Amino acid sequence: MQKIFFTPGPTQLYPNVAKYIKEALKEEVCSISHRGNKFQQIFHNTTESLRKLLNIPEGHHIFFLSSATEAMERLIENCVANKSYHFVNGAFSERFLTIAQELGKEPEKYEAEWGKGFNFNFKIPEYAELVAFTQNETSTGAAINMADIYAIKDKNKDKIVAVDVVSSAPFVDVDYNKVDSAFFSVQKGFGMPAGLGVLIANNKCIEKSEYLQYKNYNVGSYHNFPSLLKSANKNQTPETPNVLGIYLLGNICDELHKHGMEKIRKETEKKASLIYNFFDAHEAYKPFVLDKGIRSKTVIAINASNSATLIKKLSDHGFIVGSGYKELKEKQIRIANFPMHKINDVKEMLSLI
Amino acid sequence: MQKIFFTPGPTQLYPNVAKYIKEALKEEVCSISHRGNKFQQIFHNTTESLRKLLNIPEGHHIFFLSSATEAMERLIENCVANKSYHFVNGAFSERFLTIAQELGKEPEKYEAEWGKGFNFNFKIPEYAELVAFTQNETSTGAAINMADIYAIKDKNKDKIVAVDVVSSAPFVDVDYNKVDSAFFSVQKGFGMPAGLGVLIANNKCIEKSEYLQYKNYNVGSYHNFPSLLKSANKNQTPETPNVLGIYLLGNICDELHKHGMEKIRKETEKKASLIYNFFDAHEAYKPFVLDKGIRSKTVIAINASNSATLIKKLSDHGFIVGSGYKELKEKQIRIANFPMHKINDVKEMLSLI
Repeated sequence: MQKIFFTPGPTQLYPNVAKYIKEALKEEVCSISHRGNKFQQIFHNTTESLRKLLNIPEGHHIFFLSSATEAMERLIENCVANKSYHFVNGAFSERFLTIAQELGKEPEKYEAEWGKGFNFNFKIPEYAELVAFTQNETSTGAAINMADIYAIKDKNKDKIVAVDVVSSAPFVDVDYNKVDSAFFSVQKGFGMPAGLGVLIANNKCIEKSEYLQYKNYNVGSYHNFPSLLKSANKNQTPETPNVLGIYLLGNICDELHKHGMEKIRKETEKKASLIYNFFDAHEAYKPFVLDKGIRSKTVIAINASNSATLIKKLSDHGFIVGSGYKELKEKQIRIANFPMHKINDVKEMLSLI
Repeated sequence: MQKIFFTPGPTQLYPNVAKYIKEALKEEVCSISHRGNKFQQIFHNTTESLRKLLNIPEGHHIFFLSSATEAMERLIENCVANKSYHFVNGAFSERFLTIAQELGKEPEKYEAEWGKGFNFNFKIPEYAELVAFTQNETSTGAAINMADIYAIKDKNKDKIVAVDVVSSAPFVDVDYNKVDSAFFSVQKGFGMPAGLGVLIANNKCIEKSEYLQYKNYNVGSYHNFPSLLKSANKNQTPETPNVLGIYLLGNICDELHKHGMEKIRKETEKKASLIYNFFDAHEAYKPFVLDKGIRSKTVIAINASNSATLIKKLSDHGFIVGSGYKELKEKQIRIANFPMHKINDVKEMLSLI
């Protein structure tokens, strides 16, 4: 039976991934030198396509890492001497904080309950060097409105604002002039095989890293920001990267761009409404996030006391949804709503519940 | 025209890579959860297959990273408080050293000329915590005999011995009971798409990392050794990994094992003899490494003053060889001799020179 993965990532592949891999193999993309013209062209195509798709200004650099988790580590390493400040309301925002602790920093946090939002009407501590937002909490389906993030940045121009858009990109519309950094991985909204992370960072991030390096802080080695930038300026990476992943990402971006981000955003919102309306009206299963203003459009968590039974039932019909995250494993299901998910499949899945 | 890549990596793909990718897509390997049974089975299959192929004892752990460069960084981070000691005779051994410097350590080195070997009859400084060997210098085609490495380990049992086998695995026959760690990436001797590094490390490495962590050293975050081990013990990785890469590696290892490592080693030696004999007898082009005892069997560097012309000529016939490394770019060619390279193709390529 043909399965459809509505899991929050890894998830359903974009339909043309198989075709692009075939083309890549035919074009010998996996055998070419990562120091040669052909690779540089692929690097250039992909970064340009990403820039166009996500409206990334020229002043922001695009770096290829291996995962979003690595992006968290590199951001802390390169942009924080001592104090980062984290908005924590789920497992992934917690993870960003933990990484800062593990790297010997002294991060602080503003904690909200899982699935709840933050009160942004307060002052970020003066000493915070980097403010970390998990714009879309994959563990709970709670989102932060970009406007709230911009407002914080506006009041804290000296601080680096870093935004985890792992499970909301490319849907989330980020004004990169109003944040210093954002990052995601490709096995979620881009519907690709895992193993590639994308970090977008402006010169403020680079300069902070250079300053820390100058002050003898450990900013890492081959993936410190100056090293990443030096290579990126040559359309290269410091190490041999996931060349196939970079190639695929360029093709997916081209395709999404052709379809049109505005259209994709509208489709995503329509599907999200369909799902939330269905569960708001459902007797047994209810959306976990009660505040409609912060409900994620791309990862939808639903309280379902007998989630294993429900997951099994949907799976028997070919629809794979996620379980709750960790402690919520047996109490929730999570439904991803990414660009590759078709409205008719959403309807059919819901009709089974 | 069908090309054959004799480049030292990325290189020619193993012939069945396309088939395995097709199977992976059919089995939805790229959509499954990296926390679920199916992924754990893939992780288990691949590590078991690697163990069998490379004779890795149970006491050595297998970790998946994103590149060999990352392996160098993680080894220094996790196993060195202050001093590592590096045998440097080329660009990649130099890189290992540089990474230690960038991480704020105070590495020391024993330097030999590029393409030359070391005199192992000397005492490693007492203070060295880790001794780093680049067993096969991809930049020059100079190799270190494993027996020399074992002898150093034997005289320095307290020190961690780490061996870069990036461009010699799986050919090089490592007795893992006599080294603490070894690492490689998959786009060379395993003939796979790049984007996966494999680090093999014993409990001595883990314990050193735990000790450094206890002493408040920065050993990294999600990819510190205790974190990698905790996940590996569950047949998982700390982050969403390159699942496709892990799947492919298992299949390639199965296939290599079926063919037989002994046979592969004999074939590799036969092809290497063919190439070295040809160039030893050639009027214009001579092997760069003069000492026959340290000539790499898997990466063969040849002095060729007009290397661009030669590379072009071979390329016109479908044979892609590497240029010299960096400063040697226009003075050498490098020919890889990996398991997927067929003797008849080697002969045909040589007949054009």
